[in-house]
Amino acid sequence: MPELRRDPVVGYWTIISTERSQRPVAPRQRAVSDERECPFCEGHESRTTSEVYAARREGTKPNGPGWDVRTIASKTPILSSDAALDRYGEGLYDLMEGAGHHEIIVESPKHKHDLDELAPAEIEKVVGVWARRILDLAKDPRFKFALLFKNHGVISGQGQDIVRHSRSQLIALPIIPKRVKEELLAAKAHYDRRERCVFCDVLRQETSDRSRIVAENDSFLAFCPFASRAPFEIWILPKRHSPDFGQIASTETPAFASILKDTLSRLRNLLDDPPYNTILHTAPYRHGKKEYWKTLDEDYHWYYQISPRLTRAAGFEWGTGIHINPTPPEEAARLMRETAPEVR
Amino acid sequence: MPELRRDPVVGYWTIISTERSQRPVAPRQRAVSDERECPFCEGHESRTTSEVYAARREGTKPNGPGWDVRTIASKTPILSSDAALDRYGEGLYDLMEGAGHHEIIVESPKHKHDLDELAPAEIEKVVGVWARRILDLAKDPRFKFALLFKNHGVISGQGQDIVRHSRSQLIALPIIPKRVKEELLAAKAHYDRRERCVFCDVLRQETSDRSRIVAENDSFLAFCPFASRAPFEIWILPKRHSPDFGQIASTETPAFASILKDTLSRLRNLLDDPPYNTILHTAPYRHGKKEYWKTLDEDYHWYYQISPRLTRAAGFEWGTGIHINPTPPEEAARLMRETAPEVR
Repeated sequence: MPELRRDPVVGYWTIISTERSQRPVAPRQRAVSDERECPFCEGHESRTTSEVYAARREGTKPNGPGWDVRTIASKTPILSSDAALDRYGEGLYDLMEGAGHHEIIVESPKHKHDLDELAPAEIEKVVGVWARRILDLAKDPRFKFALLFKNHGVISGQGQDIVRHSRSQLIALPIIPKRVKEELLAAKAHYDRRERCVFCDVLRQETSDRSRIVAENDSFLAFCPFASRAPFEIWILPKRHSPDFGQIASTETPAFASILKDTLSRLRNLLDDPPYNTILHTAPYRHGKKEYWKTLDEDYHWYYQISPRLTRAAGFEWGTGIHINPTPPEEAARLMRETAPEVR
Repeated sequence: MPELRRDPVVGYWTIISTERSQRPVAPRQRAVSDERECPFCEGHESRTTSEVYAARREGTKPNGPGWDVRTIASKTPILSSDAALDRYGEGLYDLMEGAGHHEIIVESPKHKHDLDELAPAEIEKVVGVWARRILDLAKDPRFKFALLFKNHGVISGQGQDIVRHSRSQLIALPIIPKRVKEELLAAKAHYDRRERCVFCDVLRQETSDRSRIVAENDSFLAFCPFASRAPFEIWILPKRHSPDFGQIASTETPAFASILKDTLSRLRNLLDDPPYNTILHTAPYRHGKKEYWKTLDEDYHWYYQISPRLTRAAGFEWGTGIHINPTPPEEAARLMRETAPEVR
């Protein structure tokens, strides 16, 4: 059972997860590029855990072929659905059982590595499933936040991404993580002072300045943020103020799918399929506790962050929290604008 | 000139450092194991920038042989000594010139890769130079904090550590980094509530529990912290309460050198010379502004952190700030205790 432990000084939580150490760690394992070996391809449903949800074609059955997007429980969950929510102390130290939910969203029945290789209508379906699953998990009162993320080609903590089949991961947590809380509180502080959403302010400044813009359509702006921590970091921000990704309008979905395809394909073409992480920044679950998040509807604004992993944090970054970025965002945005999207 | 840029939402600083991107990035470059090619070996002083300080044998001259520990300015500084301290704004955004100081502390005249290969008396000299240089930089009123760290065998942001000659880096900053401020404020909050130093409390609990202890002597305790973010993370904590590493007592220096040698050699023997970072956590420069740091002498406690880099942060860690550690610290400490130190 994973365990959440709290640092007694600064208060960060760590997940001690021995289950994951039993997972074969083989950093030099060859990539599964052959779809016959891939557990995520259509027709291989029996090789995964049971289906949680699937966008299926009419008349097809769960755990069989006939789907467009399919979500399954992680085989090596970071947090466990079976855990209780018990919190306890050991002297100075606080710990809790690692309760949570961890699922994999398989983004195509075909063996595609890159999300942007899918057709616009296919990406729309993926975006729809992301939103739907985040809303579904909101019904569980144990969960305070859900993180949607993607490790693309990344050598992660537990070994390399050896199955090259496009997917995202969704993890629901019984706590609001420190990183998320910081962003929420900072947005609230800006609003309290100025009665404006800080992200709407950023949108306004970027739209007028234009030097950091990567792509734009009626509903979204993709740009390299002013204090980019990673070379070629990109934020995709909806132009309509909205705190919840789950509340994305049906008119916005095609525009989001389109700017996502545009941005990710430029990134692949420019940097030769770089490893990247994506992180969806969205409001926590409120479970009707409106008073706790009084101004959240006004002060927070969801966005989708893409961070290529071209550099690696070392002693200075870990010791200070200050990242060193060798590529100014203005330069990164210019190169991205000059690169043709799609092609492949 | 490097530039410090502040994120308008959460407020973290990023260093945009284009100078460093001109540095040859060659991740697969072969390691310089041949001392004839090493710029840090005794006799090769002309291949480095000018000497900042050296612990020299009597009668020898700066920038020539005859030293035990030698510090030089970094050839690719993260922050520049020439920059002014100007801060300005661009609409929503804050920036400042990247003023600071970046030096390399070469820890042996011989071509040694591992600090623990040095004799105890040699490590004592290294510790002495660390303290001396931190105190020297305190005299510059521009600097608010100095970070001493080590990237051992680590593939860092700017390419691999290709010169295998033991050294630390010292960077003085015109700001107190967010990560450091958080720790200072958290320690202060603990003290305000309980009138006890949180690190002294941790020391007491670890000493009585014993399950996470790696090594111990009269003046220091080395242990795997309760919420270790990295497998085999180790903190070396002085038993005497003291906020400033620079104030290390002459009686403590040999004990610190000895526990450092013991711990690092066990780590090397157990995990076959793993890559690791070290970070010295110590009090900021106060420049006589005692009132701002009223209780710091009582509430803060320096320590030396060693973090092996066996896992790699990916989307979940970046999105939440929560790290996943597959090795419980109790298990890591037991394995470290069972491993013989030194040998090599």
